[in-house]
Amino acid sequence: MKKDIIESYNRISPYIHKTPVITSTTINKITGGSLYFKCENFQKMGAFKMRGATNAILQLSSEQKQKGVVTHSSGNFAQALALAAKNLGVKSYIVMPSNAPDVKKSAVRGYGGEITECEPTLEARESTAKKIQLEKGATFVHPFNDFNVILGNASAGKELLEKHSDLDFIISPVGGGGLISGIALSALAFSNNCKVIGAEPFAVDDAYRSIESGKIEHNLTIDTIADGLKTSLGDITYNIINNHVEKIIRTTEEEIIAAMKLIWERMKIIIEPSSAVALAAILNSKTEFKNKKVGVILSGGNVDFKNLPFS
Amino acid sequence: MKKDIIESYNRISPYIHKTPVITSTTINKITGGSLYFKCENFQKMGAFKMRGATNAILQLSSEQKQKGVVTHSSGNFAQALALAAKNLGVKSYIVMPSNAPDVKKSAVRGYGGEITECEPTLEARESTAKKIQLEKGATFVHPFNDFNVILGNASAGKELLEKHSDLDFIISPVGGGGLISGIALSALAFSNNCKVIGAEPFAVDDAYRSIESGKIEHNLTIDTIADGLKTSLGDITYNIINNHVEKIIRTTEEEIIAAMKLIWERMKIIIEPSSAVALAAILNSKTEFKNKKVGVILSGGNVDFKNLPFS
Repeated sequence: MKKDIIESYNRISPYIHKTPVITSTTINKITGGSLYFKCENFQKMGAFKMRGATNAILQLSSEQKQKGVVTHSSGNFAQALALAAKNLGVKSYIVMPSNAPDVKKSAVRGYGGEITECEPTLEARESTAKKIQLEKGATFVHPFNDFNVILGNASAGKELLEKHSDLDFIISPVGGGGLISGIALSALAFSNNCKVIGAEPFAVDDAYRSIESGKIEHNLTIDTIADGLKTSLGDITYNIINNHVEKIIRTTEEEIIAAMKLIWERMKIIIEPSSAVALAAILNSKTEFKNKKVGVILSGGNVDFKNLPFS
Repeated sequence: MKKDIIESYNRISPYIHKTPVITSTTINKITGGSLYFKCENFQKMGAFKMRGATNAILQLSSEQKQKGVVTHSSGNFAQALALAAKNLGVKSYIVMPSNAPDVKKSAVRGYGGEITECEPTLEARESTAKKIQLEKGATFVHPFNDFNVILGNASAGKELLEKHSDLDFIISPVGGGGLISGIALSALAFSNNCKVIGAEPFAVDDAYRSIESGKIEHNLTIDTIADGLKTSLGDITYNIINNHVEKIIRTTEEEIIAAMKLIWERMKIIIEPSSAVALAAILNSKTEFKNKKVGVILSGGNVDFKNLPFS
């Protein structure tokens, strides 16, 4: 595993940013812990997803690369795959629900992705992607339930642990589980017993419930400001999380907004609500992290400035 | 001069952040130049003013320190002096106009500053500060027209030029002129002919007009989003700017907002409108900076998130 992560890291490193790790005296005072923020909001296209997308494409054969890649996504992975493909001279087909925001469609187009719109249901997304696979011979890349994507994401954990090998914990948001799976594998490979904890909104606590019940659970509603965390786990991410993630801490919407505001105001960096969930979890479980060294994955920084939650 | 700047730097460095210098491939592509952003938005209390305030207090005698410092300001300098004084165990008296935003008053109080409110006129501010000087024996520290404040600010230029000694230009916003004066002195001391250029909104172009007319000009209106740049020059800053600043580039309000949005969206960092004026100037004078190495001073990051200019 360690070898796989190192090889993935070497493979993608010409195409990604080695993002900084920053600290905040003020936030350390407030939490009582020593927090090390891994800034994937500064990653290319504004999110960690660039890592996994790049690794997945680089693992294709020349013949596969010639025929292109396809995915379905309404969020950051659509942009990540389009940009990673462009950087590698590969054609990308992106299936997006017809109700996806124009700004996201323009971003995908700006990166050279060819968009096919479909009805906003998972079934329509999957069948449209399947059709493109068959017609174009393009290779499907899943946004998170793909081992090469997870290995690419693991490079963020590797970079963090190389700088701070003595972390007691790393906290990562959980959506489909692709990020935290990579972080958990990197903690196994590069740390001395650093525990990985997930952070999830109560409103979409499928990962928490999946670990409780012992099988993949789904979200009945998706009413959260953390729009990157609405997805349920896949079988690969479920297994990694179930085996290697210590636990999941849940947060309220108010806690997410307060944590986001704290980071914007005090650290002067832009993170998206999904990233704030990790700090929100630390703040609602302070005693657990008191005097501990805690890595915090800031997963992305793509925000609609017209729709900020601060009142 | 070089010796003075080095001594000021050594004096204040335990109390300030050595802020990072960052770059953006996207913004370099857009401008055609190589831009090096000096991130004073990450400075303590969110602005470069921490440097000058700290240096001014550290230059006082023990007796002066015991009696405290006083200033009048409705903006970042009020907070900077209060925090710098607190860090050095010195009492601070801050005269603020009664119409200053509550959030700024709370920040000053949070740093231990004793606020005296007065009518929102320059005359009332000056006479109230004078009264405190007489009653308390406190030393008045001017927000910008003070050589020790300017020397403290110069440390930002020193840090930038130590990392990038081959800059062709440094662009800095101009308000009262305390920042750009420090930058100009540091360019004289630490660069090989790096030219310093000011950036100023058309709406408050007193520095531009002062250089044109050969005397200190004032602003008749102060209708700009760049609220840190409304002040006119003082005699000390006017003289330094007149002798050592290449020129002033003026920008429209639309250009300021567009530049601010570009930095927020692409660099994922929070800067205040006054900081965006520097990039706005580069964008409206692109040919001048094409293929040049340009330092850009991001002066601060204190923003009211409830009142963003993005539409």
